[in-house]
Amino acid sequence: MAEAKIPKATAKRLPIYYRYLNILFNAGKQRVSSTELSEAVQVDSATIRRDFSYFGALGKRGYGYDVESLLNFFKKTLNQDRLTNVALIGVGNLGHALLNYNFRQTNSVRISAAFDINEEIANTIQSGVPVYPMAEMKEQLQIQQIDVAILTVPIDDAQKVADELVAAGVKGIMNFTPIRISVPATVRVQNVDLANELQTLIYFLDHYGSEAANQSTTD
Amino acid sequence: MAEAKIPKATAKRLPIYYRYLNILFNAGKQRVSSTELSEAVQVDSATIRRDFSYFGALGKRGYGYDVESLLNFFKKTLNQDRLTNVALIGVGNLGHALLNYNFRQTNSVRISAAFDINEEIANTIQSGVPVYPMAEMKEQLQIQQIDVAILTVPIDDAQKVADELVAAGVKGIMNFTPIRISVPATVRVQNVDLANELQTLIYFLDHYGSEAANQSTTD
Repeated sequence: MAEAKIPKATAKRLPIYYRYLNILFNAGKQRVSSTELSEAVQVDSATIRRDFSYFGALGKRGYGYDVESLLNFFKKTLNQDRLTNVALIGVGNLGHALLNYNFRQTNSVRISAAFDINEEIANTIQSGVPVYPMAEMKEQLQIQQIDVAILTVPIDDAQKVADELVAAGVKGIMNFTPIRISVPATVRVQNVDLANELQTLIYFLDHYGSEAANQSTTD
Repeated sequence: MAEAKIPKATAKRLPIYYRYLNILFNAGKQRVSSTELSEAVQVDSATIRRDFSYFGALGKRGYGYDVESLLNFFKKTLNQDRLTNVALIGVGNLGHALLNYNFRQTNSVRISAAFDINEEIANTIQSGVPVYPMAEMKEQLQIQQIDVAILTVPIDDAQKVADELVAAGVKGIMNFTPIRISVPATVRVQNVDLANELQTLIYFLDHYGSEAANQSTTD
């Protein structure tokens, strides 16, 4: 199936669809309607049908979608059949939690190396992941051909470490620090600003009350 | 100043502007241009000017924006002069990290109570925050008048705990579990799905490469 460039909003929903289809498949379910999908993933069914239409007509009227073929299709689209190794920079409280976080629900992403300046944990294994000293970051990222990094260093080190990641050839950074890092246009940054998320939630509660609830970082 | 309903996309950028203005103010800076702001917060200056225009004409041509008055304005808009107490449900790895996370950068949000079923940490104080047993959740939320909760329980408990939060009168839930919880339309949910964020980053790297980099959960 030829894959056209799909809208960003659609692309962001793909992992959500994928995860739910995986649950259905493991539960032995063979087909699913867009209404059922809609209720489970909290996306309206018109949007689901439009999203799916970008990949060709995958559903049949009166039958819905075949779970297994839909799942296989998304697996290919999302490269779920290929493991992406990711580095974690900064093994503080949040870094530790992320080492234990179940990124592998879909078996496609794994934190395979971590880095920290703290000499007490450098050269140890934490939650199954080797922690290297920061001085070895560039070399290890290149040897291990890792081009995606999760940034959980203190705010004052964020830009400096980001510069080093760029120099090491990293192409994508998931930035958990509250500052906006500057990177060349060739590097993609996904900002995850937890304080901002919480503040936004509270702002919306105060100003919009109950109307149009259910925000999401992935909508 | 009368405050009209502003677009959601604008509302989501307010905490970002606020944080940067705070940094400028603390550094003794008295004015800032939309170009400077743009570079710092990685939002284009036309968007910044449009965002600010919803609040009335705050900038002066050839002068830029007065940092202190802009800051005071945002402080009021974002209720930064009022402390919001928030509960954390589930003190596992991620919950622990969030207790230590600096939500208080802007002094307006504080995790003031935590809840866990683990008897070893219930009735202790973790990172300065009292941890109550789950059985006391409803009562404590009502006594402490907390209506915003951060949900970091295991996936299998998420919906049950969400139902209990709703029954306790909670109006906003920041959901860190990978499932989409069902709540009444009167309750707002902000989903923070870290695996999904990472998968989206990788998907965009694979399919869009370097074009249009710098994604954000808050864009």
